[in-house]
Amino acid sequence: MKPRSLSLLLPSSLAIDASDLRSKTAKIGQIARAASVFRADRIVIYRDPDLDETELIERILNYAETPQYLRKLLFPLAGDLRYAGTIPPLRTPHHPDAEKIEIGDIRVGVVVRVHENGSWADIGSKRSAFLNVSMQKGERVNVRITSKKPLKAVPVDDDEIAGYWGYSVARAGSLSGALTLTPTPTPAHGLRIATSRYGESIDADLLRKIGAESGSEDVLVVFGAPHKGISEIMDEEKREGKGKSEKSFIAEFDYTLNVLPDQGTATVRLEEAVVATLAILNLAFH
Amino acid sequence: MKPRSLSLLLPSSLAIDASDLRSKTAKIGQIARAASVFRADRIVIYRDPDLDETELIERILNYAETPQYLRKLLFPLAGDLRYAGTIPPLRTPHHPDAEKIEIGDIRVGVVVRVHENGSWADIGSKRSAFLNVSMQKGERVNVRITSKKPLKAVPVDDDEIAGYWGYSVARAGSLSGALTLTPTPTPAHGLRIATSRYGESIDADLLRKIGAESGSEDVLVVFGAPHKGISEIMDEEKREGKGKSEKSFIAEFDYTLNVLPDQGTATVRLEEAVVATLAILNLAFH
Repeated sequence: MKPRSLSLLLPSSLAIDASDLRSKTAKIGQIARAASVFRADRIVIYRDPDLDETELIERILNYAETPQYLRKLLFPLAGDLRYAGTIPPLRTPHHPDAEKIEIGDIRVGVVVRVHENGSWADIGSKRSAFLNVSMQKGERVNVRITSKKPLKAVPVDDDEIAGYWGYSVARAGSLSGALTLTPTPTPAHGLRIATSRYGESIDADLLRKIGAESGSEDVLVVFGAPHKGISEIMDEEKREGKGKSEKSFIAEFDYTLNVLPDQGTATVRLEEAVVATLAILNLAFH
Repeated sequence: MKPRSLSLLLPSSLAIDASDLRSKTAKIGQIARAASVFRADRIVIYRDPDLDETELIERILNYAETPQYLRKLLFPLAGDLRYAGTIPPLRTPHHPDAEKIEIGDIRVGVVVRVHENGSWADIGSKRSAFLNVSMQKGERVNVRITSKKPLKAVPVDDDEIAGYWGYSVARAGSLSGALTLTPTPTPAHGLRIATSRYGESIDADLLRKIGAESGSEDVLVVFGAPHKGISEIMDEEKREGKGKSEKSFIAEFDYTLNVLPDQGTATVRLEEAVVATLAILNLAFH
């Protein structure tokens, strides 16, 4: 059954094998695409001491998730984002193709001007939309169009939005830390799924079981680093005193899954594992 | 259950949205990786009149599938293969990391010298291996090492090879033509699976059913073009008189599957669809 939310936990070393910014960007872009195809709500980058590229990953993921019309406003297209233009468009409902705006449309906006009577947001139209509320300049806000001439809109809550509306990006100092982040503060809440080639091979029965348990839960799917599995990462963190939990690796998770039984290659790349895992879990969720 | 063979049918227009050779290469490389992770035996490129890049696709897929030590011998690293070095290694059993060779090892070789008493093949060692059979120069052959000093080997049959040993690449003038290629000459043989976002949403029950039917069969998985589904392609071919079959699109296939129910994006890229589809079918096969 459909989970309440879907979060992906990924290591800060995920692009460790990519030798240059262009290939790092391509890899992170593939993860942004996969997260969107499978409607992930949140991506958490947890720190792997082997390589901490959290900032780069976060910036590229956020860039990809931002509607095209707001990118120039929010991101300087230099430095780290030099190749971000090569990432294929996400084509999610919050990235509209056309400029055409109708009353009732929901759009992502960014506040560009503030006044004591209200605020103006860039919503991808030639003119800014007036919001009858006071906001911070630069704030990102989802709005519903209430008038075309003059262009006016009102902020909307998340639960008023029907389609997939992109993911947020968060960071954590360690994997153990990431597991204690809200919206899954304790293992009693939510379903925690670890991916590992040494995990239980997933099949139709297991898929049905996970499906039955995932309804209305906050589901967390955790991926290890390219050269280091989740269990190894948690052992390292324990040795360094970061792992607060005395529980074993296995006990931290509801499921430890091998989603690629009998793989033909010695290794599976993270971007491949993300698509494969989410494609399979998506069946459990529907 | 494990199929006897797994073939992927892909259109010659698969890279139509990639604007330059570098991104076409990356896309084709991702397909080579996916085919290897999921142990595909064969990739058939069928001609889509919208864009026929069969030669380029075939060359890049073959390059990626060739063990590193034979690439220089078989492919001029110029022209179309300019960016092929950026494709991540497949790391299949037939692409050994080390040069070390032991008696009993199976290797891919290419005949580099012929003589009336036998042939010599490059098997990735400093010295060529002597084969006690007459062969054609340039021929590719799988061999088992029988002696280290002097280096000797004998050709082996496919059924003597246990691990995944790569894919072959074939071409077809049309999708209808591809469906009549061996090893699945008639619909009575093998399991034909079409992928379509308008297909039946796959779930645990359907997965189990496909699993029960796939054992020892030649399984064909067919993908449409980026902007044109399988049904549209077959209709076009019928209009042009290429579709020999009078059967409807649906009747050509045992299953027409939507493997991505409730996708968050307007479109799914072919390389994403290939990984997602094969990841799901892999569960049915194990």
